[in-house]
Amino acid sequence: MNMKADIINPFLEATISVLKTMAHVDPVPGKAYIKQGSASKGDVSGIVGITGDTEGSLSITFSGGCILHIVGQMFGEKLDMINDEIKDAVGELTNMISGDSRRRLEEIGYHFLGAVPTVISGPGHEVRHITKGPILSIPFETPGGHFVVEVCFK
Amino acid sequence: MNMKADIINPFLEATISVLKTMAHVDPVPGKAYIKQGSASKGDVSGIVGITGDTEGSLSITFSGGCILHIVGQMFGEKLDMINDEIKDAVGELTNMISGDSRRRLEEIGYHFLGAVPTVISGPGHEVRHITKGPILSIPFETPGGHFVVEVCFK
Repeated sequence: MNMKADIINPFLEATISVLKTMAHVDPVPGKAYIKQGSASKGDVSGIVGITGDTEGSLSITFSGGCILHIVGQMFGEKLDMINDEIKDAVGELTNMISGDSRRRLEEIGYHFLGAVPTVISGPGHEVRHITKGPILSIPFETPGGHFVVEVCFK
Repeated sequence: MNMKADIINPFLEATISVLKTMAHVDPVPGKAYIKQGSASKGDVSGIVGITGDTEGSLSITFSGGCILHIVGQMFGEKLDMINDEIKDAVGELTNMISGDSRRRLEEIGYHFLGAVPTVISGPGHEVRHITKGPILSIPFETPGGHFVVEVCFK
């Protein structure tokens, strides 16, 4: 699968749509780019495997401040600690962004299935997709801080 | 999918077989058990999504000493730092353990596909499978330290 421009939009739009709907947060996307072999760092990540037309993986890596802001908006309260409720919310958001992306990809002719998401937490952990192929990276800003959506396909 | 005893063995046997073949390490399994909702902690993890008869996820979470020992055995040299080569090796081991497990599951009538693995690194990070269902946890010991294989299905 080529990392064509037409596959960037489904992930970009799904991310914005899910965060707007679920958390009333309007994330501001930076410039999406294709990178090779490097990794992203954050404090909480949602990861979900993809199969179908080809195999892949999707990760969403949040800074601590960013995810406290987003989940605080979801719950309607000010949060200051990354607890189990926040990790579960990251799993739910990851599932929804993965599902909405795949629905949008379906509309342009790609068929994918999503696996069960995993949530990673730990200050400054690194997420590395194991592929020789390109990795699509879309950075976002929120009032609480930044996060990045990364997608790779075989 | 029920967490029946017959699905524990494919993951147990695949893990032992891959580490023996690739790294000449004989991991000693502890008692496998089914847990609900808790998480495991480690320093390097390989994660891979599963689809097919049902969706799931597989994680292998290593202590730092354990993965330095295993990859040191693979490379035939003494390693003392978790670098990019070690992370790539964890991706490769995860892929092979996932593939060998799925081949063994196929033999008893289950059909699964594996996604692209992701490798997480960061001291004491936590891995949490986002499922309401049970999680199969198989602890292992090696001369370098412990690791745990966790599998969940929807």
